[in-house]
Amino acid sequence: MVSAEDSRWMAQALQLAERGLYSTSPNPRVGCVLVRDGNLLGAGWHKKAGEPHAEVYALLDAGDAAHGATAYVTLEPCSHYGRTPPCCDALIHAGVARVVVAMQDPNPQVAGRGIAKLRAAGISVDCGLMEAAARELNAGFCARMTRGLPQVRSKVGMSLDGRTALSNGVSQWITGADARLDVQHWRARSCAVLTGINTILADDAQLNVREIDVERQPKRVVLDSHLRMPLDARILQGGVLIYAALRDDHKIERLQQAGAEVVLLPGTDGRVDLPAVMRDLASRGCNEILVEAGAVLNGALLRAELVDEMLLYISPQLLGSSARGIAALGELTALDQRVDLKWQDVRQVGRDLRITVTVRNDDKGV
Amino acid sequence: MVSAEDSRWMAQALQLAERGLYSTSPNPRVGCVLVRDGNLLGAGWHKKAGEPHAEVYALLDAGDAAHGATAYVTLEPCSHYGRTPPCCDALIHAGVARVVVAMQDPNPQVAGRGIAKLRAAGISVDCGLMEAAARELNAGFCARMTRGLPQVRSKVGMSLDGRTALSNGVSQWITGADARLDVQHWRARSCAVLTGINTILADDAQLNVREIDVERQPKRVVLDSHLRMPLDARILQGGVLIYAALRDDHKIERLQQAGAEVVLLPGTDGRVDLPAVMRDLASRGCNEILVEAGAVLNGALLRAELVDEMLLYISPQLLGSSARGIAALGELTALDQRVDLKWQDVRQVGRDLRITVTVRNDDKGV
Repeated sequence: MVSAEDSRWMAQALQLAERGLYSTSPNPRVGCVLVRDGNLLGAGWHKKAGEPHAEVYALLDAGDAAHGATAYVTLEPCSHYGRTPPCCDALIHAGVARVVVAMQDPNPQVAGRGIAKLRAAGISVDCGLMEAAARELNAGFCARMTRGLPQVRSKVGMSLDGRTALSNGVSQWITGADARLDVQHWRARSCAVLTGINTILADDAQLNVREIDVERQPKRVVLDSHLRMPLDARILQGGVLIYAALRDDHKIERLQQAGAEVVLLPGTDGRVDLPAVMRDLASRGCNEILVEAGAVLNGALLRAELVDEMLLYISPQLLGSSARGIAALGELTALDQRVDLKWQDVRQVGRDLRITVTVRNDDKGV
Repeated sequence: MVSAEDSRWMAQALQLAERGLYSTSPNPRVGCVLVRDGNLLGAGWHKKAGEPHAEVYALLDAGDAAHGATAYVTLEPCSHYGRTPPCCDALIHAGVARVVVAMQDPNPQVAGRGIAKLRAAGISVDCGLMEAAARELNAGFCARMTRGLPQVRSKVGMSLDGRTALSNGVSQWITGADARLDVQHWRARSCAVLTGINTILADDAQLNVREIDVERQPKRVVLDSHLRMPLDARILQGGVLIYAALRDDHKIERLQQAGAEVVLLPGTDGRVDLPAVMRDLASRGCNEILVEAGAVLNGALLRAELVDEMLLYISPQLLGSSARGIAALGELTALDQRVDLKWQDVRQVGRDLRITVTVRNDDKGV
């Protein structure tokens, strides 16, 4: 049984976990507090891969006081040797009396083993407290563990009538400065920022995190089926991952010399195989992907059911029916060919409106 | 000087005024309360043209108690003989000591005369309390009085990517049942519901108020430049006002026989002259117009700077870039040719989102 007091401490652990938003990947964001008799004895959060887990920091913080305490952890403590020793052992060794866990480890091959190990050592364990919040914080990690795919979030800046640019390509600046700054936070928490070659050709986009401090930049990824990437593109500076369909060894070699990694993943249509791209990114440890692309790539990803969430910055203006749309979904002949969404959040960001929706891929084709 | 107590009573008068939302036109919505020593003595609201004004009902309600009372009125009391005697005289005759007015009469030829008349009779008058709310309630009446134009509100039901229908015209039902019911309220408060002939040809639309009780139906108006209205269109039942550009006496006569009024207002382009239509509707006493049209008419009205407000019902779905847009604004070549909007309200209506924006016509062409 959990109490309101338990929720208060778990909320604190979740806040600690959030501190790792920009740095823990490919690991999940995890926070931990140690409490006895209503007093906080120790607190910790996971900072980055290879460094100690949240529980270890909290135990170090509490010292001998951890004996008989309750540990609140936002993710099931690990039971295996990874880059660091198992946290279960550390909790058992410290004499913790009770562990409250927000959610099981989403990896199906692990889930529950940490909890079982704690219980076998005589520790009382409650699991599932504030699970929704914990799951949301690590939605990308969960997607990678359970589906072998990253969580894909597609960002769009558009007018209220759903237009990203004029028909001649002019698009700067449809959304305002506050919206552009907000995007930087979504880039910073992502493992990779992905776009199509057309965005590079049109804007010479860099897709790096600017204006906010981050320890690690997200991987930059460009889908470039026919290897049209210019050798002087700014995105080549600092490294870029290019997925292509065309085997042009000469161009590939020159791109590699310019700092790019080129991966050939041709699909059946002569273009890059989109599901294979996402599986490859997951295999590289990518939890969250931010897509910043135009209508063609957005539409193809949506049609391939690879987009989980859309982040729409809506500017208070109309650009009219001749301007470019946000997603090319092909010629629909019946309304049931639409893409269904679910409202998540609506808020004002500067002069723009930000709408977050999830894509109901699970309702499709059933 | 006005007090918090004054605001409380004026809020009550505004609530009374709102009861006339569906019935007062072409008159404004007006409410009145009579108060002394913190006690409500009488209350009234204007119901419909030709019937007594709010002040008269409140005075009847209060009887002799009105002597020495304060009257809270949402609009400056009239000082002239219209269909009913001037309310100023009634207030003076009843011995009211003080009058608090939310806003002056917007008619430039009247504004302030009622207040002056009250003051000349020794009554203390405060004007401007909760003026914004009072003005919003009668925005259409104000527009007609000050600009000789109705307030025009354009309603659109669309997907989140700004699409009203598939390219083949299929559109039922993009928005949900709650949104469609909400639209009925906006129709009911409007003096006229206006559409283009294409909407009639596609949907055989009736544009009447359904599902909610109203004493009067709004006037139905169709822009039909080339007199394409079918003689068996459902909208002909119960009367419709058709604006046309083509002088086809035979067709006009047959439409008249079928119950339509046909007005010829040709513009220079062989189509109906849109500003002339709005001026004509204002001259007929139309305060608020609800436009329910497709992209072509919406775009033309926006380009003519005749739309004051847009009411967008947004369904959580994407229909893709091939589907129909909400406003044909022509081929824009620079972003400053856009239509600028201002956020007014965002709320959920059933499964849809409702966004209200005002159109910033005043910022244009300066």
